[in-house]
Amino acid sequence: MNETVSGTGAWPDLAGRIENGVHLLPVRIYYEDTDFSGAVYHANYLRYCERGRSDFLRLIGVHHAELFDHPESRQRLGFVVTAMNTRFHAPARIDDVIEVHTRFVSLGGARFDLVQEVFREAQLLFSADLKAALIDGEGRPRRLPDDMRARFQAHLNESP
Amino acid sequence: MNETVSGTGAWPDLAGRIENGVHLLPVRIYYEDTDFSGAVYHANYLRYCERGRSDFLRLIGVHHAELFDHPESRQRLGFVVTAMNTRFHAPARIDDVIEVHTRFVSLGGARFDLVQEVFREAQLLFSADLKAALIDGEGRPRRLPDDMRARFQAHLNESP
Amino acid sequence: MNETVSGTGAWPDLAGRIENGVHLLPVRIYYEDTDFSGAVYHANYLRYCERGRSDFLRLIGVHHAELFDHPESRQRLGFVVTAMNTRFHAPARIDDVIEVHTRFVSLGGARFDLVQEVFREAQLLFSADLKAALIDGEGRPRRLPDDMRARFQAHLNESP
Amino acid sequence: MNETVSGTGAWPDLAGRIENGVHLLPVRIYYEDTDFSGAVYHANYLRYCERGRSDFLRLIGVHHAELFDHPESRQRLGFVVTAMNTRFHAPARIDDVIEVHTRFVSLGGARFDLVQEVFREAQLLFSADLKAALIDGEGRPRRLPDDMRARFQAHLNESP
Repeated sequence: MNETVSGTGAWPDLAGRIENGVHLLPVRIYYEDTDFSGAVYHANYLRYCERGRSDFLRLIGVHHAELFDHPESRQRLGFVVTAMNTRFHAPARIDDVIEVHTRFVSLGGARFDLVQEVFREAQLLFSADLKAALIDGEGRPRRLPDDMRARFQAHLNESP
Repeated sequence: MNETVSGTGAWPDLAGRIENGVHLLPVRIYYEDTDFSGAVYHANYLRYCERGRSDFLRLIGVHHAELFDHPESRQRLGFVVTAMNTRFHAPARIDDVIEVHTRFVSLGGARFDLVQEVFREAQLLFSADLKAALIDGEGRPRRLPDDMRARFQAHLNESP
Repeated sequence: MNETVSGTGAWPDLAGRIENGVHLLPVRIYYEDTDFSGAVYHANYLRYCERGRSDFLRLIGVHHAELFDHPESRQRLGFVVTAMNTRFHAPARIDDVIEVHTRFVSLGGARFDLVQEVFREAQLLFSADLKAALIDGEGRPRRLPDDMRARFQAHLNESP
Repeated sequence: MNETVSGTGAWPDLAGRIENGVHLLPVRIYYEDTDFSGAVYHANYLRYCERGRSDFLRLIGVHHAELFDHPESRQRLGFVVTAMNTRFHAPARIDDVIEVHTRFVSLGGARFDLVQEVFREAQLLFSADLKAALIDGEGRPRRLPDDMRARFQAHLNESP
C-alpha cells in the first residue's frame, strides 16, 4: 500500500491552529479514552492538555526532540509540569470531538504559567491552570533560551 | 475563550481519508506515546490501529455510540478484535507523524478480516492482520446488519 | 498451564493495606509508565492515585462493579473526581517501586475530600488534594448511602 | 504521613512468583483498564504481558535500568518485541483479578520466544506467542550476554 503514503504535508491541521492568541487542538474520543462508566477516564484530560501544549510549542518553533537531543547543549532539556490545578465540569464520551484551548498567561526565568480548557462545542468539560518549567537532565531548572523566550512572549495572553 | 470554539466542521481531516480503498489516518507521537527507551511503547500501535478502524467505520457511516445505545435493538452491539498478528519493524519516536493504513480484506457472517500497516513517510514501522467480530452485550457473535454489510462490501480491498 | 492458576487468595497484598488510617498501595514502574525523557509520564500519577482510591474503597467493602450494576438501585452509581490540585515534586523512573498513600479528610452529603501522596522510600514525588462525588447515570450527585457513609466516617483522617 | 512509608521489602509478592517454570503475576483491573463497552481495552493485555515479562526478568536478576544505563557497555541495551501473535478469548472486567502466565520457550543468539497467557481463575482470557530481541541504542540485535543467557536457559519451559 506504499504508493498511498501521503506525507506530513497532507495533514495541514494536525498540530491545530493558533487563533486570537489561543491554541486550538481537536481531539477525537476513541475506545482507548473511555472507561466502563461510559465517560472519558479522568486522567486522560491531562494527556489531551499535554498534546495541546506540545502542538502550541511546535507551531511556534519549539520541538521536544531538538531540546532533548540538542547537539551542542548536550543537556537533555525538557519541559515538566510542576503543578496543575484541575476542574472536571462534564464528561466527554465515545465518538465526541473535543477541543483543547491553550494559552500562556505568564513567563518567568525558567517557568511559565498556562491555562487550558477543554470544550465540546460550547460546553466547558475540563479546565486547568498549570505551572511548567524547563529542566535539564539532572532535573535542575534552566533559564529559557532567549529565542524561545521571545516566542513565548509574543504569544502571552493574559485575558481571562 | 468561548468565542474561539470552532466546532467539528472546522477540522475536516480529523477522521482521516479513504484513498484507493485504503483508509489513511495520521497520528502525531506525543510524550504519552513514548517510553524511557526513546521509542513508542509497543502496545500503543494497537491503539493507533483501533483509531484507524474506528475512523474508517466513521467515514462509511458506522458509529460506535449508535451500535452500543441503539434505541431499537437494545443489544449493546460492539466490535471486538478476536485475533491479531503483529510485526514490529522499526520504532516511531517523539514528534514523528505516522500514518495508519487500514483495509478490509474479507467479510464473513459476523466476522471480518483487516490488514493494518503503520508508516513514517515510506518506511513501514508496524504491520498487523486481524480478525474482528460484531458481538452483543452477552459476548455472542451477531450477524452484521445488511446495511452495514453492504458498506463493508463496497470497501473490500484484497490486494496485497 | 492451567494447573498453576493460583486464585485471588494467593495474593493477599494485592489491594494494599490500611495502616494508621492511611491506605498504602505499592506500584511498580514498568515501560508503559515512562516517557522518552526517562521519567514517569505526569498524567500517570493520576492513574496510580485512582488505583489507591479504588483499593482503599475495596478494603472497606465498597466495590465499583456493585455500585454500577446494583440490582435494586438500577442507578449506575459511580464515583467521579470533580477537582484535583496536584504538585509534581520529583520523578519516578523505570523499575522503581513507589507507594501511594490515601486518606479521607472530610465527608459531605454526596462529596468527600481526599489527600493523596506518592513516595519512593521516604522521598515525596507527587501530592494531590481532591474532591470526589457519587453520581448516578445522569451525572447527578447522589447522597452517599448510610452504610457507605459509616465506612468512610470510620476512616476519616484529618491529620496533616 | 512519612512515618508510614514501608519500603519495598514490605511487598514481597510485588513481582509475582515463579512456579514450575512459569512466572505468575496478578493484575487488578481498575477504571483505567476498561473502556465504555465494559470490558478491558484490548491493547491493555499487551501492557499486562509486558509487566509479566519485566517481572520474570527481575526475579532472575535482569533489570531494565541496568541494561539501559550500564556503566561499562554504554550501549543502552534494551528488549524489544519483534512479533506477537495474540488471541482474545474472553473479556476481563472492572474489579477482576487476572493472572499473567509467562514462559520462555526457546532461545537463540539475540532472540528468544515466549508464550504468555492471561487467566481469570481457570478461564483463559488472552494468549500470545511472541518473539523478543536484545538491541542496542541503534536498534541492532545484540547477542545475549553469557550470564543472562545462562539465566534464561535455566528457565526454559517448552511444555505446551
